Amino acid sequence: MERAILEGVMKLLEEGVPLAELSIERVARTAGVGKATIYRRWSGKEELFVDVIRAAEPPDPELPGTSLRDDLVALLESMRQRGLVSRSSLILHDVYAQMKSSPKVWAAYHAAVIVPRRVLAFDVLRRAQQNGELRPDVDLELANDMFVGPMLVRSVMRPEVDLPEGLAEQIVDMVLEGLRPVRSTAS
Amino acid sequence: MERAILEGVMKLLEEGVPLAELSIERVARTAGVGKATIYRRWSGKEELFVDVIRAAEPPDPELPGTSLRDDLVALLESMRQRGLVSRSSLILHDVYAQMKSSPKVWAAYHAAVIVPRRVLAFDVLRRAQQNGELRPDVDLELANDMFVGPMLVRSVMRPEVDLPEGLAEQIVDMVLEGLRPVRSTAS
Repeated sequence: MERAILEGVMKLLEEGVPLAELSIERVARTAGVGKATIYRRWSGKEELFVDVIRAAEPPDPELPGTSLRDDLVALLESMRQRGLVSRSSLILHDVYAQMKSSPKVWAAYHAAVIVPRRVLAFDVLRRAQQNGELRPDVDLELANDMFVGPMLVRSVMRPEVDLPEGLAEQIVDMVLEGLRPVRSTAS
Repeated sequence: MERAILEGVMKLLEEGVPLAELSIERVARTAGVGKATIYRRWSGKEELFVDVIRAAEPPDPELPGTSLRDDLVALLESMRQRGLVSRSSLILHDVYAQMKSSPKVWAAYHAAVIVPRRVLAFDVLRRAQQNGELRPDVDLELANDMFVGPMLVRSVMRPEVDLPEGLAEQIVDMVLEGLRPVRSTAS
């Protein structure tokens, strides 16, 4: 039932119906269910819409928990996968753009998707700081932007640039080790 | 004369005239000049508009040329200043948003402003790689995203986050030195 409703919304989006014209009534008609059925599961159009996006996005990453590097690579690799899906799926790409110009939908997506991902990333960084894998004086909020920033710039702001395999590993290693030449330790 | 025309456009924007309705004719009327005067200086509305934005933005940075760190700090500090201006000026903020939804104006801004800034940053990074200030194996395009990414994420994508003084220095030092704990060299 839930599946049919989510697919109904996707069908309407594929037909080019703009987000602003997607009413619960229209979704109910397309999915062949009553409006009450939709309202039993979702409190409103915004929440329903966020679930449609989540169903189209790659799943959230499983963190291996073996090291700071492995966890960060898993987090950034999942951002890269989302970037690739959003580039290859014209509908998803369009949906992101529409979402950002609708404050209510964006707020719902932010609360349901972005905040939990940030919490996950902060847990990883905090644990690493306690373990001694991360410098003790590093501000965690800034550290998070250091890892996430380069991937976001590429996937969101510069759609003409590649998102090659191995990019997550490259970014994580560059941020952890720094860009200065390695000093000889044989002094 | 040029000044009067740029101020005329700014005045119309302040009055809330959307970019799409800003015709050369209307600008000419507001500035009290003939259309031919405008066309002698600008090939079209897009080029004129880009100059209006540039006049409202902080000037491009002067690079000290003393070290990789100093040059990168100057580049990032100028991004921070632009971020602060765009946050404090409601008009400029609105203009950026409108610009991004107008492909022709965005292309003109990209060619006139963003490309030269990228060229400048690449010159700095290339020189540092030749000097040995930057690891020889680092891909310069990715290195650029490593410095620019965290500042862009903060100034553009997360308007609720601070852009404190010293942020440029912090980012540059973190990227250059890495986030791993410093290993004792007294081994």
